[in-house]
Amino acid sequence: MEIIRTVSEMKAAAAAFRAEGLSAGLVPTMGSLHEGHMSLVRKAVSENDRTVVSIFVNPIQFEAHEDFGSYPRDMAKDSELCERASVDVVFNPSAREMYPDGFHSYVDMSVLTEGLCGARRPNHFRGVCTVVSKLFNITYPRRAYFGQKDAQQLAVIKRMVLDLNMDVEVVGMPVIREADGLAMSSRNAYLNDEERADAAYICKALSEASRLFDEGERDIRRIERHIGELLSKIPSIALEYAEIVDAKTMRPPDGDHGEIICAVAARVGKTRLIDNVRLK
Amino acid sequence: MEIIRTVSEMKAAAAAFRAEGLSAGLVPTMGSLHEGHMSLVRKAVSENDRTVVSIFVNPIQFEAHEDFGSYPRDMAKDSELCERASVDVVFNPSAREMYPDGFHSYVDMSVLTEGLCGARRPNHFRGVCTVVSKLFNITYPRRAYFGQKDAQQLAVIKRMVLDLNMDVEVVGMPVIREADGLAMSSRNAYLNDEERADAAYICKALSEASRLFDEGERDIRRIERHIGELLSKIPSIALEYAEIVDAKTMRPPDGDHGEIICAVAARVGKTRLIDNVRLK
Repeated sequence: MEIIRTVSEMKAAAAAFRAEGLSAGLVPTMGSLHEGHMSLVRKAVSENDRTVVSIFVNPIQFEAHEDFGSYPRDMAKDSELCERASVDVVFNPSAREMYPDGFHSYVDMSVLTEGLCGARRPNHFRGVCTVVSKLFNITYPRRAYFGQKDAQQLAVIKRMVLDLNMDVEVVGMPVIREADGLAMSSRNAYLNDEERADAAYICKALSEASRLFDEGERDIRRIERHIGELLSKIPSIALEYAEIVDAKTMRPPDGDHGEIICAVAARVGKTRLIDNVRLK
Repeated sequence: MEIIRTVSEMKAAAAAFRAEGLSAGLVPTMGSLHEGHMSLVRKAVSENDRTVVSIFVNPIQFEAHEDFGSYPRDMAKDSELCERASVDVVFNPSAREMYPDGFHSYVDMSVLTEGLCGARRPNHFRGVCTVVSKLFNITYPRRAYFGQKDAQQLAVIKRMVLDLNMDVEVVGMPVIREADGLAMSSRNAYLNDEERADAAYICKALSEASRLFDEGERDIRRIERHIGELLSKIPSIALEYAEIVDAKTMRPPDGDHGEIICAVAARVGKTRLIDNVRLK
């Protein structure tokens, strides 16, 4: 496995894959790899001739008050996990390499980014779209893998690829959970024992939403309120939103067609966690 | 010569060029082709195995009050000019093909777009960056050709390609002028006889700026004022800006190094024209 830290070397490696007629799969990550990431990596390895994992804590997708500085970083462990998973290249550039002096270009999106996390993190999806565009241009993947835990991010990336005519197949992969249902996230490391125990209620509330929907409830406001009431009983949890939306548009479902999800963001102590479940 | 109107057919044609190892040159235009465009086309034909000319009046780079509706369109004449110049493909998509329902993605730029035309046309460069990004992804050019008449556009495109790690060489080509010095522009067709005669003074004022600079004048405000005074005497001309800037940053020159241009935008009657001259 090769670890590459510069854009020009990564481009050369990717161009060499292409010249040999080899397909590349990209798994963009911010490192601190867990089973959620590794499920994407395994899928990429199984579907492509070469797999590139990018490990880059992307400064421009954090708001100024957020956890960019304290976001967990462990390149040694991440590299080992990638090596064992038969990854071909880890791309691990510095912020300066990705955003040199005079960097002024951005990829952004309207409408899909206006609700949910986008409403609370006004610069987040601009940062995500920009870095993913760059990573696509640097690594020329045939396929790129993203977790469905970040449901709005997945919808945004799919829309960006379509709108800007990019030649990448975006593959969304199921949420991977701990034994008690908590969605895996690098930010789970921030939780103390009490918070960790409480955090499982986010998933439990989503299961309740799913149950109500399966029983025929179609008043989405009622389901959303029910989640709010359930989580309001958990001392360390402060709900940010619980919304039922169309998985493609991130807007209220238009009738009963299309994929519908229930998405939640909540603070558990000081840690902001997100999760979602597919209702249909 | 092939005329292609859909993104999928254009992608297929471009992929076929690439598969055969043929380089493609792209000349992005809004049609109404004149000698300025044709100088780009000839350069593209001379430097690449295949030349693609896109003809697309891009709605999203016009402000709401601007001339999108009346912008001159003449596909029959444009096609003939391209055919005679040995162009291989004219890509002429509809607005709906480029911006289907649910289109929400944009490429944008800060800083470089804040002055000059960007200050007067707040959505213009977002529209330009977005459409050029799309055209690059649709036609996979090795090189793309832009006129230096649109100096800020050229600087913005070069920056975008660099920032977003696109694999395109951006080639800037000299301003092509009428016999009296007026920079060629599709919008010159809007001018009546009196305005057409007056319009030549824009270029004359730029020549004056050049003369002053060559004589050693380094007080750029004085040169800018001089242009303003010259043009204020021409009845049909209303100056929008006359600014001396670094050609790369579009900001005031940082000392005497780097390429420096004097750029002008003016209304001649109701027609907005731009021009610029390189000072060093």
